[in-house]
Amino acid sequence: MLKIPVIVLNVKTYAEATGNEALEIAKAMDKISKETGTSMAICVQATDITKCAENVTIPVWAEHIDPIKPGSHTGWTLPEAVKEAGAIGTLINHSEHRLILADVDTCITRAKELNLDHIVCSNNVATSKSIAAFSPNFVAVEPPELIGGDISVTTADPGIVSGSVNAVHKVDDKVKVLCGAGVKNGKDVAKSIELGADGVLLASGIVKAKDKESVIRDLASGL
Amino acid sequence: MLKIPVIVLNVKTYAEATGNEALEIAKAMDKISKETGTSMAICVQATDITKCAENVTIPVWAEHIDPIKPGSHTGWTLPEAVKEAGAIGTLINHSEHRLILADVDTCITRAKELNLDHIVCSNNVATSKSIAAFSPNFVAVEPPELIGGDISVTTADPGIVSGSVNAVHKVDDKVKVLCGAGVKNGKDVAKSIELGADGVLLASGIVKAKDKESVIRDLASGL
Amino acid sequence: MLKIPVIVLNVKTYAEATGNEALEIAKAMDKISKETGTSMAICVQATDITKCAENVTIPVWAEHIDPIKPGSHTGWTLPEAVKEAGAIGTLINHSEHRLILADVDTCITRAKELNLDHIVCSNNVATSKSIAAFSPNFVAVEPPELIGGDISVTTADPGIVSGSVNAVHKVDDKVKVLCGAGVKNGKDVAKSIELGADGVLLASGIVKAKDKESVIRDLASGL
Amino acid sequence: MLKIPVIVLNVKTYAEATGNEALEIAKAMDKISKETGTSMAICVQATDITKCAENVTIPVWAEHIDPIKPGSHTGWTLPEAVKEAGAIGTLINHSEHRLILADVDTCITRAKELNLDHIVCSNNVATSKSIAAFSPNFVAVEPPELIGGDISVTTADPGIVSGSVNAVHKVDDKVKVLCGAGVKNGKDVAKSIELGADGVLLASGIVKAKDKESVIRDLASGL
Repeated sequence: MLKIPVIVLNVKTYAEATGNEALEIAKAMDKISKETGTSMAICVQATDITKCAENVTIPVWAEHIDPIKPGSHTGWTLPEAVKEAGAIGTLINHSEHRLILADVDTCITRAKELNLDHIVCSNNVATSKSIAAFSPNFVAVEPPELIGGDISVTTADPGIVSGSVNAVHKVDDKVKVLCGAGVKNGKDVAKSIELGADGVLLASGIVKAKDKESVIRDLASGL
Repeated sequence: MLKIPVIVLNVKTYAEATGNEALEIAKAMDKISKETGTSMAICVQATDITKCAENVTIPVWAEHIDPIKPGSHTGWTLPEAVKEAGAIGTLINHSEHRLILADVDTCITRAKELNLDHIVCSNNVATSKSIAAFSPNFVAVEPPELIGGDISVTTADPGIVSGSVNAVHKVDDKVKVLCGAGVKNGKDVAKSIELGADGVLLASGIVKAKDKESVIRDLASGL
Repeated sequence: MLKIPVIVLNVKTYAEATGNEALEIAKAMDKISKETGTSMAICVQATDITKCAENVTIPVWAEHIDPIKPGSHTGWTLPEAVKEAGAIGTLINHSEHRLILADVDTCITRAKELNLDHIVCSNNVATSKSIAAFSPNFVAVEPPELIGGDISVTTADPGIVSGSVNAVHKVDDKVKVLCGAGVKNGKDVAKSIELGADGVLLASGIVKAKDKESVIRDLASGL
Repeated sequence: MLKIPVIVLNVKTYAEATGNEALEIAKAMDKISKETGTSMAICVQATDITKCAENVTIPVWAEHIDPIKPGSHTGWTLPEAVKEAGAIGTLINHSEHRLILADVDTCITRAKELNLDHIVCSNNVATSKSIAAFSPNFVAVEPPELIGGDISVTTADPGIVSGSVNAVHKVDDKVKVLCGAGVKNGKDVAKSIELGADGVLLASGIVKAKDKESVIRDLASGL
């Protein structure tokens, strides 16, 4: 499982993080992770998993898996396929890719079957607690209205972080908790730890930065 | 654009066609395509596009694209990403991955913008005609109840093939028409051409075959 | 079928048009329709169909039907149920309730089977043409970005109206065409007719008006 | 809130339970509920709520609500609308009408805001527990593969009932638990209580019965 505390980057489908651009970001994180000893992981598009996994040693993850087994499922994301491509983990139920409740269960079960590490995303304290009932590796709470914005969840809504940590641990204290949305610098990362989280999940903070390396270094300094 | 008549294989998410298995099938098709001069293409999972595209000369396609532009779309299939990975075409609206009407339009528009060849799937004559209104490269008609079955659409429902050819050409005579569902051998392929189609789209007929090469050769013999 | 030219109101799920409020609007339209001889229809929530249908003589429609037959479909909108409740027509594929392509076909087929009049909504000229291939009673083109706004589609994008009329009639000249989005007054209605449409589909223009009767009268004056 | 133990009927969109047929079933339940003193409720299609609520005294419920507030949501089921129509409760997340996790949360929140009683459906022990985290009035566990079948969940999979009761109460012991799928007679009802449930949720057992009254009486005898 991911060593905590951890910084997890989700590159989404940004132009700045597709194909070779995803690989460049993965390499930068890999370098800084080694230099600083900070635990980091990168979630990339399905098309880019192999290329990244073959070229870096930090964990490469998928951004999503579908609640399916091998079979007739044209164009969906098979958990076995992302694993064979080189992913060692996956996001599940990101707020941009929400699943029906029964499928959250199925995806977590499938990830466990395949020994895929997994972060299940929630949008508030109540859904964080609800997800904890499935005993996933990680819950990541991200208020949708703050995603992609300029103010970190740790500043805008610290209670959703500490509240999720408490609610999750009340149901299952082995589940780790991350927070995300608007996270941009080492101060935000430090604050997340202070609020009881085990790290952060972020996207645009790195992907949209002009100087990605310096942002990654700054984030790492927060741990 | 795909040279017609053509045999298009959709490997879906079958275990027998994931990762290295997809590559083996692509290589077999590539070899037989060259030997026989038959036009062939293979649609593979997003995770497997690069590996296949780097190792074969027949067209490698995606099984699906989502109706999105680069941006915040965690875990969805970006048209630009499948293209950069090496796909030169894509299925759209497969019966196992149906799209809302406005998104069929968006996906076709996006494919054209990126110069991605595309086959849009329909389930009957009426939807074939409806899709033709968007002037895609190809329409592929596949009755859902025959998909994965033992009887070829060309035998079970020849009227849906000839009817789609007529209906599509009435709206736009430049749109090519394929047929699929239950297609398994050269006789089925020959019959599809006789019914006015420009080739076939198939999946389990090859993927689930014990001797895949011999099935591919037999299919090619039908053209 | 609806007498054309026609003014069709979709009350959506606005608070100002739920339950008794829906009935009040239906009565106002009924009164003005009779006074002015203008053809009008009102689409209401499923819960409100019976109450409205029992109290007015203008056509009461459903806002949506699902692509189902009687059976195990908990909480979905059965075409037979809206008909038995008193609806004589239905919207299909509204931009706030889009359907997958094959389901647009199924809903139109089900509406025809039950002799339910129907308006199928499109978002641009290409989808208008695509829908025409199913030969529905009506296509209503509404650019999503103008819905609920202050500028009428007839002013903001007249080409989408005339373009839809031409594209639809090229495929099937018996299909009637309405336009909608931002329609607020008689001038907008008159312009829609001038552009070749057979009437308008509107919502907030009436529902959100302080003086609903005077808006309805003004709209009627445009025909 | 529903008096427990309770028998809740979901009439779905069966032909035998649409419009006047729904009313006839509601009247039969109403009569037998009074005669036997058994707590019963009936969930009907949105179109049929008012007619049923005006004619019976047992609780009339909706089969579904959508996760919306009043506004621009054409054709969706507004919680306020089912309440104004006469429903005093609603099913949420039925296995034939599943919701994404965040929307399960929103629907429960909306039901609580409007003081609508509610049963949230789950498909296994893990999702029962997950739903309990939202503290709804009721969780109803129904294994999808047994729905509409001939063998009662209480016989086919008693562990899913007792397991859900335990798991739910571990998270929140105020949440009531129902079970459903294949429930057909008083013996099944009695067994559900024995397994720790507070009653049953059923559909075809009554709706598809030739002699509905005698089935309802038999079910009531199990409490």
